[in-house]
Amino acid sequence: MSFNKLIEKIAQTQNPSVAGLDPALDLIPEFIKINAFDKHGENLKGAAKAVYKFNKGLIDALCEVVPAVKPQLAFYEALGVEGVKAFYKTVVYAKKRGMYVIADAKRGDIGSTAEAYAAAFLGAEARTGLPASPESDTGNFTAPFPADSLTVNAYLGSDGVMPFINVCKVNDKGIFVLVKTSNPSSGELQDRQIDGVPVYEHMANMVAEWGKQLPGKYGYNGVGAVVGATYPEQIKQLREKLPETFFLVPGYGAQGGTASDLAAAFDKNGLGGIVNSSRGIIAAYKKEKCDERDYAGAAQREAIRMRDDIMKHIGEIKL
Amino acid sequence: MSFNKLIEKIAQTQNPSVAGLDPALDLIPEFIKINAFDKHGENLKGAAKAVYKFNKGLIDALCEVVPAVKPQLAFYEALGVEGVKAFYKTVVYAKKRGMYVIADAKRGDIGSTAEAYAAAFLGAEARTGLPASPESDTGNFTAPFPADSLTVNAYLGSDGVMPFINVCKVNDKGIFVLVKTSNPSSGELQDRQIDGVPVYEHMANMVAEWGKQLPGKYGYNGVGAVVGATYPEQIKQLREKLPETFFLVPGYGAQGGTASDLAAAFDKNGLGGIVNSSRGIIAAYKKEKCDERDYAGAAQREAIRMRDDIMKHIGEIKL
Repeated sequence: MSFNKLIEKIAQTQNPSVAGLDPALDLIPEFIKINAFDKHGENLKGAAKAVYKFNKGLIDALCEVVPAVKPQLAFYEALGVEGVKAFYKTVVYAKKRGMYVIADAKRGDIGSTAEAYAAAFLGAEARTGLPASPESDTGNFTAPFPADSLTVNAYLGSDGVMPFINVCKVNDKGIFVLVKTSNPSSGELQDRQIDGVPVYEHMANMVAEWGKQLPGKYGYNGVGAVVGATYPEQIKQLREKLPETFFLVPGYGAQGGTASDLAAAFDKNGLGGIVNSSRGIIAAYKKEKCDERDYAGAAQREAIRMRDDIMKHIGEIKL
Repeated sequence: MSFNKLIEKIAQTQNPSVAGLDPALDLIPEFIKINAFDKHGENLKGAAKAVYKFNKGLIDALCEVVPAVKPQLAFYEALGVEGVKAFYKTVVYAKKRGMYVIADAKRGDIGSTAEAYAAAFLGAEARTGLPASPESDTGNFTAPFPADSLTVNAYLGSDGVMPFINVCKVNDKGIFVLVKTSNPSSGELQDRQIDGVPVYEHMANMVAEWGKQLPGKYGYNGVGAVVGATYPEQIKQLREKLPETFFLVPGYGAQGGTASDLAAAFDKNGLGGIVNSSRGIIAAYKKEKCDERDYAGAAQREAIRMRDDIMKHIGEIKL
């Protein structure tokens, strides 16, 4: 009922980073697309098949080095039903290879609707919307997309978060709530002051409060926060304010965040967060200018470089 | 590039309401589920087949009376890939029957990710992420889920909204941004004051600004606002502040909002908003206690009752 599993996997790999599987079609090597289009047509289905093939190669190359993947739903939905099927297969394959899966969907809704999203991604019971206990689960109606955690947008308040927490309690899952996002315009709302305190900090306080319901083994509870690597001051401030909140940190690399920017997310045991890189890892072959057939190798080399870059600032990860 | 089509449809039916297609399994008549489970198994696939059957009956009964449907993505995702296929088929069938389709997905993300969501729901080009112009479109990579508009969560600021607007410009689509949601806890963030102005009003001001980029024919632009029927004071205040913003008003009926509560959303021509009812319409057969085989008839009777209830407070709708 928290991020225990993720934290253990991070310690095991000594790598607090996650590979964002955001397979925009222009990032997929030509040979994969050509094969898939030849076989399935140059259309959404062919593209979805290419996406899964691409991801499978990445997962094989990364699973020993990186503890987690974070598929971004948008890139799968953009390919329609076939794309969503590629998402499903990606989640299942990543788990089979021992990786922790964060579904980056930024879902947010209320009541029975939030329960339905929890059923979709966190293994509640699709028939009832209620958490499926491991005992009662027949398997027929649970875990349509069996991720380990989900990103959530909490603009709607507690009504939009509690249904997810209730499922996490039963099913050993976690959520990451958007607090301070990595994009340039995040401040338009998130930095505005409420009673002298910025909106993101107000959100952070709610996150800390919600988190009390999902206590964890290693000092971190099951309601995490998304905090962009591009805002190092805020990372530092939020780490001090929220000592029990695990951070998902996007914005490393391509978006401009550096390892020293985000070092403040981590505690003295090297725990406290996981850093995402998407394009930086999955399209490393383009930057490296290697043969595109070596795209998975390039992804692994970049993942190792990123790991070493971050670990320099953290030291050993100790449970 | 706005809500022109929706407004014309509302005027044609003289009905400013939308049926929320939120097919939680416990709302689907037993005879439909039994048939589907017999044929496809008592599992996610069987359930998804039941959902589509249920929706098809509803659409047939509602398409002459109600201008639009609003399928809520969560209930389809909860049934996995097969559920998402039922969503796709529902959108296509509703459009075939002449209805306007609002995809209620509350998506929100940045840059290329938001472009991918726009590709998914608003007909951008999945290969490039860019808006597909009607001329260049080969049809192979566009409109995986061909809705007319999409609900959007703008906690991330303009970066999370502009990619959608860019697509709407080319493809004659619209978005509804969450402003003041209908749920009890919406105030936890949305009512807090920024410089003496609540967060929802701050969001409303951004919506008005974004809307300038999608001017419409009937006085309303293509960036709408979600404003709950459960907050009549805010509806009135926001209507005055945002004279060119079209409102999507959830919370009628089941959640407690009444027709007189939401009358302030409308202007002197009876335009300005569309009121959602989900459970109230699609599960009317339960409330009416009629034979469940008459569920679609009951939905139509409730839709007519709701229309008359709202129209009493509005008078004629004039373009």
